[in-house]
Amino acid sequence: MSIHAYGAIAADQSLEPMRITRREPGAHDVQIDIAFCGVCHSDIHTVRAEWAGTQYPCVPGHEIVGRVSAVGAQVTHHKVGDLVGVGCMVDSCQHCAECNDGLENYCDHLVATYNSPTTDAPGHTLGGYSQQVVVHERYVLRVRHPETQLAAVAPLLCAGITTYSPLRHWKVGPGHKVGVVGIGGLGHMGIKLARAMGAHVVAFTTSESKRDAAKALGAHEVVVSRNADEMAAHTKRLDFILNTVAAPHDLDAFLVLLKRDGTMTLVGAPASPHPSPQVFNLILKRRSLAGSVIGGIPETQEMLDFCAEHGIVSDIEMIRADQINEAYERMLKGDVKYRFVIDSASLGNNQPARA
Amino acid sequence: MSIHAYGAIAADQSLEPMRITRREPGAHDVQIDIAFCGVCHSDIHTVRAEWAGTQYPCVPGHEIVGRVSAVGAQVTHHKVGDLVGVGCMVDSCQHCAECNDGLENYCDHLVATYNSPTTDAPGHTLGGYSQQVVVHERYVLRVRHPETQLAAVAPLLCAGITTYSPLRHWKVGPGHKVGVVGIGGLGHMGIKLARAMGAHVVAFTTSESKRDAAKALGAHEVVVSRNADEMAAHTKRLDFILNTVAAPHDLDAFLVLLKRDGTMTLVGAPASPHPSPQVFNLILKRRSLAGSVIGGIPETQEMLDFCAEHGIVSDIEMIRADQINEAYERMLKGDVKYRFVIDSASLGNNQPARA
Ligand SMILES: [Zn+2]
Ligand SMILES: [Zn+2]
Ligand SMILES: [Zn+2]
Ligand SMILES: [Zn+2]
Repeated sequence: MSIHAYGAIAADQSLEPMRITRREPGAHDVQIDIAFCGVCHSDIHTVRAEWAGTQYPCVPGHEIVGRVSAVGAQVTHHKVGDLVGVGCMVDSCQHCAECNDGLENYCDHLVATYNSPTTDAPGHTLGGYSQQVVVHERYVLRVRHPETQLAAVAPLLCAGITTYSPLRHWKVGPGHKVGVVGIGGLGHMGIKLARAMGAHVVAFTTSESKRDAAKALGAHEVVVSRNADEMAAHTKRLDFILNTVAAPHDLDAFLVLLKRDGTMTLVGAPASPHPSPQVFNLILKRRSLAGSVIGGIPETQEMLDFCAEHGIVSDIEMIRADQINEAYERMLKGDVKYRFVIDSASLGNNQPARA
Repeated sequence: MSIHAYGAIAADQSLEPMRITRREPGAHDVQIDIAFCGVCHSDIHTVRAEWAGTQYPCVPGHEIVGRVSAVGAQVTHHKVGDLVGVGCMVDSCQHCAECNDGLENYCDHLVATYNSPTTDAPGHTLGGYSQQVVVHERYVLRVRHPETQLAAVAPLLCAGITTYSPLRHWKVGPGHKVGVVGIGGLGHMGIKLARAMGAHVVAFTTSESKRDAAKALGAHEVVVSRNADEMAAHTKRLDFILNTVAAPHDLDAFLVLLKRDGTMTLVGAPASPHPSPQVFNLILKRRSLAGSVIGGIPETQEMLDFCAEHGIVSDIEMIRADQINEAYERMLKGDVKYRFVIDSASLGNNQPARA
């Protein structure tokens, strides 16, 4: 079955319309007609081969929402017509300690939604900038938001779970003072989620212009991190920091804001390392510097349900597929509030350049 | 009261005999006749002003054991004749969250055993390379080991608690595979303590020659970290790593040995930073890099009691006070198994160079 998609044929090429194929649904597969797909920074890194190992053609996209259009004979959790989502993974080994713990995101044999080896053509997975996707039912999430919010639900599948999982793992809740560093696609979700979990939220941005926006997202306080006095006022005050900034930056400036036993968790990975943090800042208050990547399937469902219950979605700007290259440029300048989402209906409007 | 001590009058001077005074015991003070004092790397860093802020004359020493020779009127926990120890601190604010939690080691107003401001002459604290010390009872620990082991108990007051506290905090016990990096004063205690807590202990050393010694200390396995194959065999196998190496080194080589959710805790602070760890190594398995410094007073007592119960002491080489400068040189070459301890009786044998 040939479908419309948008992708790149080489690292130095723009994304362009193309046709791809999807496998026929197997016994445990769910076929999804994609309605919307969010645009993540990982998409840019991968399609431009800024991380090692990009396979071409590369079709990015791992914030997928849509409607089930077919199911395999053994599928029990989803049925035709259901609103569903697919995030950053479409398979894993299903039997290791991580998979058994529902933390498939930490499985050594994780199959990412795009650019992972697969027996399907063309030999690597192709993502959600496409009309349809076929995914093992285990990796398909149920969306309980109203359908009118569906586009704004898409970014929950990566930006949402990437911030929800560490907030839950480090037990953020009422009585906690939580820092969220960076107010972009990830950070804006971190603010909303930490607030909904009952924490006192302090947002950190380098930009004076984002102060009001961060408050509107739910931050109780906003700190412009270039302002040393504002930073100093929070020294040893935070229980937890969710650091969403992938660009190399001074981690010590934030580590010193943690109380004793506080943790700063990084969810962005810089292309070049951060300046090395001062060991004294860890030792003298028994602080931790940690990392976290997306989340497991059960907690992704929990996150979607939590968001549905609390009326939480992403703030989005809808685009057509043919605006994706321009959208990438705007993302690199931080010019998006806060996530681009591709309207998949626009994919069919383009004549494919290659079949 | 003038007593014999050993210290330095400037950063570029050797340690030499000197006379110092101690305050008369106040209502809550315990006066201790020092029997032995362990020699810690911090002593060298401080006396040579390798860390900021050394005050002179500098009398190091924070692994103190001895016998109570006088107590103030209000002292309830100690009496004349008791065998006691004093570690890295002799006071703290006594009312902050850290002090109230029994984690005086994280108090912002910690008074270190040497080189901290005090109202006593000469205006900064003077450590255990001396015949006597006067300390608030809260910071005096009871020693329950047999007196014949007293010299070998001294290093428990810093090297012991520095390794015990993180092993307990990160809940090391039966069923855990624990790495101990570095087999020196701290590491040799880490091996003994982790073993006694029931963990499977993997010792890491750069030196083939330490393999047998590490086994003799209690390590179940020993890895020579320069050997890539040996290291690779432990990839993703360790629950916790206690890293005692203060010299800058490649943290990533050890972080990748941690299982998902594993923590590597640093207890040494390098003079110049470690190479910056790869964020991917934290993110992809939700690992943590943490720090820990000594331990609180209640857990120091718990550690001493645990060691007494399990027959654990430090491996030591006894020296006279006039051998201290030579001992420092040997420590810097790693030529000690595993802790020098000064026999305080030797202090009186030296004629003081200045009064
Ligand atoms: Zn993403
Ligand atoms: Zn697995
Ligand atoms: Zn020490
Ligand atoms: Zn205090």
